[in-house]
Amino acid sequence: MTVASPQARFTALGLTLPPAPKPIGAYTPALVVGPHLYLSGHLPTLPDGSFIKGRVGCEHDADAGKLAAQQVGLTMLATVIDRLGSLDRVRRVIKVLGMVNSTPEFDKHPHVINGCSELFGSIWGSELGVGVRSAFGVAALPNNVAVEIEAIFELA
Amino acid sequence: MTVASPQARFTALGLTLPPAPKPIGAYTPALVVGPHLYLSGHLPTLPDGSFIKGRVGCEHDADAGKLAAQQVGLTMLATVIDRLGSLDRVRRVIKVLGMVNSTPEFDKHPHVINGCSELFGSIWGSELGVGVRSAFGVAALPNNVAVEIEAIFELA
Amino acid sequence: MTVASPQARFTALGLTLPPAPKPIGAYTPALVVGPHLYLSGHLPTLPDGSFIKGRVGCEHDADAGKLAAQQVGLTMLATVIDRLGSLDRVRRVIKVLGMVNSTPEFDKHPHVINGCSELFGSIWGSELGVGVRSAFGVAALPNNVAVEIEAIFELA
Repeated sequence: MTVASPQARFTALGLTLPPAPKPIGAYTPALVVGPHLYLSGHLPTLPDGSFIKGRVGCEHDADAGKLAAQQVGLTMLATVIDRLGSLDRVRRVIKVLGMVNSTPEFDKHPHVINGCSELFGSIWGSELGVGVRSAFGVAALPNNVAVEIEAIFELA
Repeated sequence: MTVASPQARFTALGLTLPPAPKPIGAYTPALVVGPHLYLSGHLPTLPDGSFIKGRVGCEHDADAGKLAAQQVGLTMLATVIDRLGSLDRVRRVIKVLGMVNSTPEFDKHPHVINGCSELFGSIWGSELGVGVRSAFGVAALPNNVAVEIEAIFELA
Repeated sequence: MTVASPQARFTALGLTLPPAPKPIGAYTPALVVGPHLYLSGHLPTLPDGSFIKGRVGCEHDADAGKLAAQQVGLTMLATVIDRLGSLDRVRRVIKVLGMVNSTPEFDKHPHVINGCSELFGSIWGSELGVGVRSAFGVAALPNNVAVEIEAIFELA
């Protein structure tokens, strides 16, 4: 049996990528150092370049927050493809840091960040697509977006 | 003179480990990549599986927050033993990221996270048990726990 | 043409370094592991040892917050020189994590953290001085400082 490559698995999902984001400050969206690909904190960029904004726990419920996190994941994939040419250049997810623009009462941050993690799992698989993770609620995010996520990957 | 191993030092402390936590989302609690052990953000799990909940600065004072951070450290140790079989498989602490469920007025986050760091120092020693660290106050944490901590270790 | 070294570029800037900070908990300000230099979360320490305190979005506007982030960067440089003897021992910036003591309404965290990132860019250059980055707003910071930043560098 042939195992589909990460890029082929992503294509089969039929999802639309947003444009790879330009940095909004003095940083680079992606950096290769040795065997690792580092990604900057990414925002939920829509295909038209706008952001999913608002706070989870009031303007968004947990499921809408999860969709925002999936959109962050898609934006990260756009950066990976822009930088490396193909998702096949990534062997595995090492680490994800997920920040939710959250009311003080909200407590389902893992459910929200799953929107990104499950996307990665569907591309790199239930073993290589799943790394360590922290998820928590922050007081505020750039441009008042709903979710920001950074990651470290291992190169293929 | 014989130097006690990390596992022997932990046993001598007489502390009770909580059960190693199951992931509450699409991540793994621990991942070995090359010479490093990455731990996901861990929560203060008690031996009965429940969490230490509540905000530091109102529901908990700084010392109660420090005890919650120690409980996070114990939960991290449970994960290390579950994954590697022994604390002796870890050579040193590299990096700790400590998130305190904090009121906006609270400003003693280093004191709180010391509850975890001093535990690690008592096991791996004042040199190898002490790495770099950031401590800060977040708006909200999963399940409304008091403290969440992630870490990177170097394997022995 | 001779290219100035990082240490020479820093000297040419004519900026004053604060004292290298002592840890305010059970951690070390800097740790070398393999080819990497890890820095703990640093605070905006002034040359007299006091901190730039207060929340960005009320007590500080975005530009004052950016100056606080530059002061954090200077404090990080003081730690690098204290630990390694010279900024020339660092080859490049890999990763910056920037935490802003922020009102819930503030949304210009990238502008604030640029205060540190632009300083690093002026020392290590527009390629090697610019790594990946996340910037976000936290509920509270140690000693009520305005900004906290941690970083990972690659050694020369």
